[in-house]
Parts: sequence; C-alpha cells; structure tokens
Amino acid sequence: MPRRTIQEFRAERAKGQERLLDHDHLGLKRFLRLDSAAYEDGALDGRTKELLGLVASAVLRCNDCIDYHLEQCVKAGYSREQLVDALNVAMIVGGSIVIPHARHAMLSIDELFAEKAANEGSGSSSAG
Amino acid sequence: MPRRTIQEFRAERAKGQERLLDHDHLGLKRFLRLDSAAYEDGALDGRTKELLGLVASAVLRCNDCIDYHLEQCVKAGYSREQLVDALNVAMIVGGSIVIPHARHAMLSIDELFAEKAANEGSGSSSAG
Amino acid sequence: MPRRTIQEFRAERAKGQERLLDHDHLGLKRFLRLDSAAYEDGALDGRTKELLGLVASAVLRCNDCIDYHLEQCVKAGYSREQLVDALNVAMIVGGSIVIPHARHAMLSIDELFAEKAANEGSGSSSAG
Amino acid sequence: MPRRTIQEFRAERAKGQERLLDHDHLGLKRFLRLDSAAYEDGALDGRTKELLGLVASAVLRCNDCIDYHLEQCVKAGYSREQLVDALNVAMIVGGSIVIPHARHAMLSIDELFAEKAANEGSGSSSAG
Amino acid sequence: MPRRTIQEFRAERAKGQERLLDHDHLGLKRFLRLDSAAYEDGALDGRTKELLGLVASAVLRCNDCIDYHLEQCVKAGYSREQLVDALNVAMIVGGSIVIPHARHAMLSIDELFAEKAANEGSGSSSAG
Amino acid sequence: MPRRTIQEFRAERAKGQERLLDHDHLGLKRFLRLDSAAYEDGALDGRTKELLGLVASAVLRCNDCIDYHLEQCVKAGYSREQLVDALNVAMIVGGSIVIPHARHAMLSIDELFAEKAANEGSGSSSAG
Repeated sequence: MPRRTIQEFRAERAKGQERLLDHDHLGLKRFLRLDSAAYEDGALDGRTKELLGLVASAVLRCNDCIDYHLEQCVKAGYSREQLVDALNVAMIVGGSIVIPHARHAMLSIDELFAEKAANEGSGSSSAG
Repeated sequence: MPRRTIQEFRAERAKGQERLLDHDHLGLKRFLRLDSAAYEDGALDGRTKELLGLVASAVLRCNDCIDYHLEQCVKAGYSREQLVDALNVAMIVGGSIVIPHARHAMLSIDELFAEKAANEGSGSSSAG
Repeated sequence: MPRRTIQEFRAERAKGQERLLDHDHLGLKRFLRLDSAAYEDGALDGRTKELLGLVASAVLRCNDCIDYHLEQCVKAGYSREQLVDALNVAMIVGGSIVIPHARHAMLSIDELFAEKAANEGSGSSSAG
Repeated sequence: MPRRTIQEFRAERAKGQERLLDHDHLGLKRFLRLDSAAYEDGALDGRTKELLGLVASAVLRCNDCIDYHLEQCVKAGYSREQLVDALNVAMIVGGSIVIPHARHAMLSIDELFAEKAANEGSGSSSAG
Repeated sequence: MPRRTIQEFRAERAKGQERLLDHDHLGLKRFLRLDSAAYEDGALDGRTKELLGLVASAVLRCNDCIDYHLEQCVKAGYSREQLVDALNVAMIVGGSIVIPHARHAMLSIDELFAEKAANEGSGSSSAG
Repeated sequence: MPRRTIQEFRAERAKGQERLLDHDHLGLKRFLRLDSAAYEDGALDGRTKELLGLVASAVLRCNDCIDYHLEQCVKAGYSREQLVDALNVAMIVGGSIVIPHARHAMLSIDELFAEKAANEGSGSSSAG
C-alpha cells in the first residue's frame, strides 16, 4: 500500500466534496463557506492563517487537512524551512504521536515543491 | 490508492475481529458484548442509539466506526437526509477537522443505499 | 474546591459569551448562529439532535458542553433514565476516560430535575 | 482557586460515583466492573497495568484519572522516580500539552507520599 | 467557583513547574528546554510561532496552554482583534467544543490587556 | 485496499524518516533523539516503557505508533497474551473507538510472531 499522494488526495477529495454539496443541507453549506472565509485576510492576513490551519491540522493529526493547508501554504510562498519550522511547533505541542503525520507532511512538501518547480519551469519555457 | 469501500471494510473487519476473539481474553470479550448491548432497546430505543453511535464516531474521527454505524442506521430505516443532518451536528461540534470524515461518510451512504436498492430489487423480483 | 454547579456554569458562561460577542468578529458570530441552528428541527427533529449534542460533548469530554446540552434535553422532556442510557453509549464509545464526566453529568441531572420540580411546584401553586 | 487536592478529588469522586450507581443501569454497572477487572492480575500483573492506566490517563489528559491511578501506583509500591519516568513517556508521546497535567501529577505525588509517610509513621508509633 | 484568573494560573503554574524540575529527570528537563526553544526565532520568527502555539493549544482545548501563549502573544504586540481572529481559526477547525475555551480566552485577553495598560500607565508616570 | 502490513509500514516509515532528518532542523532532531531516549532503561526499565508506549499509542489511536511499539515489545520478549492484556487496558480506557486499532494490532502481532518464528527457525538451522 504505497502512500497516498497529493494528486490522489485531490481526486478523492473532489469526489467526496461533490457528494457533500449534493445533499443541499443549508447548515452544512454555510459551515463550508465559513471554513473558507476563516482563511481570508482579516485582522490577521490570510497567509498567516493558512499556517495556523496547518499547525491545527497537524496537532489534531489529520493528513487530509495537513495536505490541504500545505498546498495553500506553498501557494502563499512559504519556504520548505518555514513549513518544517511550523511542523516542529506542532510536534512539540502534540508529541511523538504527531511524528507519523510529520513524515507524511515531508513527502507532501516534496511533491508540492516538485509541482511548483515543474509549473515554473513550464511557465518560463513558454515565456521563452 | 482508491477509497476503502464498505465491502472492503467488512472483509477487513471480519478478519481482525476473528483474531481479536481468538485470543480468548475474558475482559476483552465482555467489553465487545457490552459494546453490542449498548445499542439494544433500553430507556432509549436501539434505533436512536445507533444515531448516537454515528455522531460519537464522527466527532472522534474514526472511519471504520462511522461505516459500522452508518450500516446499522440504514438498516434501521433512516433516510439520507436524516443521516446528513446527524453528520451536520457532528461537523458543528467537531469542526472542519471532521469534514474529511463527512466526505468519506457521504460515499459510504451512497454505497449502502445502492446495496439496499439492489437487495430490494432482487427481493421483489424473487417475490415476482 | 466544590463541584461547579449548573447555576455557576450559567453565570460564568453568560459573562464569557458576552465578551465573545463584544468583539464583533463576523465569522465568529456566524459560527455561533450556525451552532444554534444545528439543533433546530430539520430532517431530524431538534429534540433528537440535542441528544446527539449531549453524546458528542460527552465523548469529547467537555463538562460545559455536557451541561449545556443536558439543560436542553431536560427542557425537551427526556427522562433521567433516557439521559443515563445516552451517557452509557458515550461511555462505551469513549471508554473509562469518560467516567469522570459521567459522574459530573449525574450531579447536573440531579440539579436540573430539582429545578424543574421547583418550577413546576411554584407553577401549580401560582395557579392555585 | 487553589488546586484541587487528592482529598477533595476523593470526596467529589465518591459523591458522583454513588449517583452513577444509583441509576441502576445494567450496561453502565457492567462497564464499571470491567474497568476494575482490567487492572487485576492477568497475563500482565496488576501492578504493571496500573502504570499503563496512569500513562493512558496522562496522554488523554484527565486529571481525575491520573490521580486515581497515581494513588493505586503508590499503593503498589512504585517510587517517585519511577512515576516521574512513566510521566516522561506520557509527555514525549503526548507533547507539551501534557505538561500542565504533569505539573498537577507532581503535586499529587507529593500529597500521596506525604499521606503514605504519615500512615507509616502512625503505624510504627502504634507498634511502639 | 469563579473563573481561574491569569494571576492564579501563574501562581499555580510556578508551584507545579518547580516540583517538575525538582525531580531532576534528564529527559523531562530536556523536553522543557526544547519546548521553550520551539518558540524562538528560526525559519519563522518567534512572534509567529507564539500564535501557532496559541491555536494549537485552543484546538487541543487546554486553558493553561491557551493562557500561557496568550500572555506571550500580548507581549509580542498582537492586538485584541488579531488574537480573536486567530481564535476564530481554532474554532472553525476544532468546532463548537472549542467555544468554552474561546470564552475563557476572551476573559484572559481582558485581564492581560488591563495589566498591560496598568504597566504602561505606571511606566509613563515613573518616567514623569 | 488490503491492510498495510508491518513490512509496508517499515518501508514507508523509513522513507518519511529520511526526509524528516534531511531538513536538518535542530529542534526536530533533538526531539527525535529525546523520543528514543525515553524508552531506554531509567528509573523504569526500557522493557516496561515500551509497553507504556504501546498503550499510549493505542488510546491515542495511531496505527503507525502501535506497530512501532509492538515490534519493540515483541523484541523485548512479551508474549502474545501479555500484549493482548495491555491492549485490553487501552480498550477499557479509550473505549470502543479503540477496537479498530486493536483489530489492526492483532494482525500485526500475528505478522511479528511469524517473523520471529521464521528468524529463530533460520537461526537454529544455520546453527545446525
């Protein structure tokens, strides 16, 4: 059973999310919107709040949530070193039980930065 | 890595359960019996308690437990809308960290109602 | 340090809730409204959902949340025996770690039914 | 609000436990018996299992459960150093979020060893 | 039982911390140092990491940890609005079960800003 | 999706662990060392502390952590019956939500004892 990749996570997530919305439950839809809104700029900027979401996900030990926030954090421009430093806070607060999730996160970070490099590479070549 | 289906869950669960009982630990066997007994009719009817088991499983974020109780809830006659409404309570109490489990549950609900429809279809045709 | 009573919980809760709302954070206020709305009649009736809220609170081990939902459950007409039966489900799902919260809940149930009896007593005497 | 002492815990616990048993719920009573039985001699001796109960209580962050198992562990003859070493495992597994419970446990250990010394002192004087 | 204030928390914490260190357990002392070090400037600045610690503490529902990080966050210059915005992320991730801790945090924020104002007031008068 | 075996866990763990160390974060590396050190002989012997690690992992419901400590426990010479007895404590403390992890653990125990038997068989034949 190889590790679930970020790509597999996205596909699986999309399928479940679609079914979640299909049911047309007003409270549930409002909660999903509120969840998105929580990471928009406010008294704190959205970029900082994505990092808060990452650490909250890590201490609560949810790989799907970690991968979602890692993706947003990479988009927001955090470096690998900064993401590792944030995950270290999660590991100290949450203990060794967080380590398997930190290992998962490290491989996700590799995948996300590889994607980013590929996109930027194709971007610059298309610009050439 | 595609999602674990309800059918795969049942096969995996049966194998582990058999090994759990093989060990013949008196306390452990008594706990398993007490666990079953908790969902039988009492001051509250069993049907209501299956829904309590579902929401408890969802806020504690255990997909195996969610699937087990979803199966019992579908047997007990709850509609899709009622199951979604119960999962909404779990999501409000437990937060966005519950969302990946709600997505999983939605797909399980699809599978369980598809099975139910197939069984009823074959039931009525065999009655024909 | 005697146990926090239901009356003390109400006073403390009111003070904190007021400060929570004072801050006028839109997302936060919307979440509080969504939380209330989750227990209103829907595909499931509100009375059933209060019981779901109680069991979710018990397995997540939050005395304030337990007391809040117990109060609503007593108002909704559940008997002591039914509340104990629901707490038994929480204890089986959540284990012995839930027992201290079940003890707390038992004393809260005593206080809530004593209040109810007093109110009904004063109600009938005022009707006399 | 000074710290809840072991003596206050015992008094509070006794009151709640009495009410828990008053309700005469068969499943609940069986679970309480199973809980006691889990710490009796079996494939592992009871003394070892009390230490398992202590660490499980610490990582799940329940002061009442910690104090209960600390009391049993002191009766079973563990030294302060051994209890601190067990709590260190809990802190490494569960992280810094366990530290406030470790602080609480340290003061409980002081109280329990003070009681033990007082009892042994009165024991030897009555023997004199 | 009135709410534990920040001042009471500090006194209680100091007493427990002293006993924790008294035991002279090497692993435990190293973990406490590592815990402090996690919030020092690194790939992320310490100020950002204090906010991560606050949100991690809130979703894990530890009032002592919340108060500790709130105190550091106020020292680091975060405004009330920013702290409320961070707590909103915690509430969305962790759900309504976090609300009692958010209420507690609001009152702690009041106390901490009152202290800060008093200190600044006395500071400027001593400068006069 | 068949169950992740112990062999797959080892391969996956090694890959993630390597990436975790690659990042060269001082605090993170120190925490990993402290984690290992917590299970070495101290006031309690390392063998006892591995069992504490197993039960802590089970109540916190982390299969990777359970498998890691099961492997160490089998190496340390615990019998199947003793491991089941320890898992029973975890199940009583943590409730039915732990059962899926106990099932997983039973199959891991089978794999680990099969490996041990194979190694001892090859060991004695090579000695022949």
